[in-house]
Amino acid sequence: MPCVIAIDLGGTKVTTAVVDSDGRVSGRTKRPAERGGLSATVEQIATSVRESIAQAGVGEVRGAGLIVPGIFSKKTGQAWAPNLWGHDHVPLLTELRKKLALPVAIDSDRAGCVLGEVWLGAARGLKDVIFLAVGTGIGAGILSDGRLVRGAGDIGGAVGWFALNPVHREIYTQVGCWEAESAGPGLARRLNVASAEEVVAAARSGDASAQSAIEETVRYLGMGIANLVSVFNPEMIILGGGLMQARDLFLGPIERVMRKWAQPVAAQQVRIELTQLGEDAGLLGAARLALQGAEV
Amino acid sequence: MPCVIAIDLGGTKVTTAVVDSDGRVSGRTKRPAERGGLSATVEQIATSVRESIAQAGVGEVRGAGLIVPGIFSKKTGQAWAPNLWGHDHVPLLTELRKKLALPVAIDSDRAGCVLGEVWLGAARGLKDVIFLAVGTGIGAGILSDGRLVRGAGDIGGAVGWFALNPVHREIYTQVGCWEAESAGPGLARRLNVASAEEVVAAARSGDASAQSAIEETVRYLGMGIANLVSVFNPEMIILGGGLMQARDLFLGPIERVMRKWAQPVAAQQVRIELTQLGEDAGLLGAARLALQGAEV
Repeated sequence: MPCVIAIDLGGTKVTTAVVDSDGRVSGRTKRPAERGGLSATVEQIATSVRESIAQAGVGEVRGAGLIVPGIFSKKTGQAWAPNLWGHDHVPLLTELRKKLALPVAIDSDRAGCVLGEVWLGAARGLKDVIFLAVGTGIGAGILSDGRLVRGAGDIGGAVGWFALNPVHREIYTQVGCWEAESAGPGLARRLNVASAEEVVAAARSGDASAQSAIEETVRYLGMGIANLVSVFNPEMIILGGGLMQARDLFLGPIERVMRKWAQPVAAQQVRIELTQLGEDAGLLGAARLALQGAEV
Repeated sequence: MPCVIAIDLGGTKVTTAVVDSDGRVSGRTKRPAERGGLSATVEQIATSVRESIAQAGVGEVRGAGLIVPGIFSKKTGQAWAPNLWGHDHVPLLTELRKKLALPVAIDSDRAGCVLGEVWLGAARGLKDVIFLAVGTGIGAGILSDGRLVRGAGDIGGAVGWFALNPVHREIYTQVGCWEAESAGPGLARRLNVASAEEVVAAARSGDASAQSAIEETVRYLGMGIANLVSVFNPEMIILGGGLMQARDLFLGPIERVMRKWAQPVAAQQVRIELTQLGEDAGLLGAARLALQGAEV
């Protein structure tokens, strides 16, 4: 059975594994991400890949798929991921191909997550699907009729910038309106505490101000999701990311708000689900990128 | 040179013409649309088509392309256009093929407009383009990497339902938040007058309340357009529809508001333009549908 290498290059850690064409994972490695520039990144990936292959005990891999925490340009082969390489666009594809001596396919983490869920997760076999990650930021991986919505400059899906409140606030300029109102840090900000987890814990223990902070966050989450429903008419929206782990506080309420705002027929047709693959969505999407590449 | 029949089936009128593969139009006819059900529509179209072919003096046409003021399902071949046929889904494709004895391609008017502009108008040769019609309603025809964003149920692009104001108003339930705040009737409503044209005329003659009504409409137009920019990262957004004819009052101000909200890199990459084809955008898009069909 054909095997590939999957690489989830995150802002803080690197995960590699061998994945077969049925999605079975073996030889998993995980390390804190090197921050010493592109060559350090590539060196670290090569080490992890060798380790994964040795652990998995496979003779041969057909190629490697990798996701980056930022932007990847298909046209130039360059990647942009400020957590790893500052504001430079780096020639990741060329360097990685050279170092690994394998076919390499790269895409963004958002793209990887939606590809993973369509392959093996909540949206198996569907073609109109959005993966929405809500954690320290907000971003979307979008499939329209089976194809990724990349945008002309490969930055499509930057939905954290959705304008949802006609009263502009200063913080919107930094991270976008939807992200400011709905991501984890925004929820923490409503109560002047350090983390969204504190707000979630307080709400569960009955704290009224925490509950209304979550209600306000849910209001904006529902509005932004409604906008995705109206414009894409998707079969499914999959929620992932740290904040969505508090499923009971978010899933039902978000869906109710969404139905209030979205185009009514599209609102009936869509299903809102939590990620089934969790932290592995991106890794499996990376494997899928490599397998698709190998099929070509 | 291959010729096709283009049919712009509107909510109030039917336009037909012969169009060649360079986009030259001849034999144009225009009639008020029949409201007597599908068979009356098909009968009227057949009459207009015969007239167009006779007027244009062409021997042969390769096929017909038609746009509908509503929804067309590729899967079922059925159309839904409440202004013409109430709330029924009608078997337009089958009936029209039978009557015209030609290959027929159908799509929505929004799809037709963006295809027309990409073929012969403001967005020639581009692949990531949005046509936004702002008139009595708001709707978008969206091309992502050269392909129409249809949605799972063929109702993608229903952007009039964008949620842009966390304070929900009753009217949003009927037409959607963005449409209520930004289409022509919404602008008229701000001053309790009968039409958007009155508000535009008053603003031009220096009326301060008319000017602030337009400012408020522009604020919402800019926000919604910003959302399209952030999620699609398009090369161009083309504005059409009745309201956008007051170019001086809208184009620059909308662009300024858009830049305040949209993802900053995507905001730099996009161009906002007015339609170059005006009322012919849809008709030429219909021709394009037929020509593409004929190529297959």
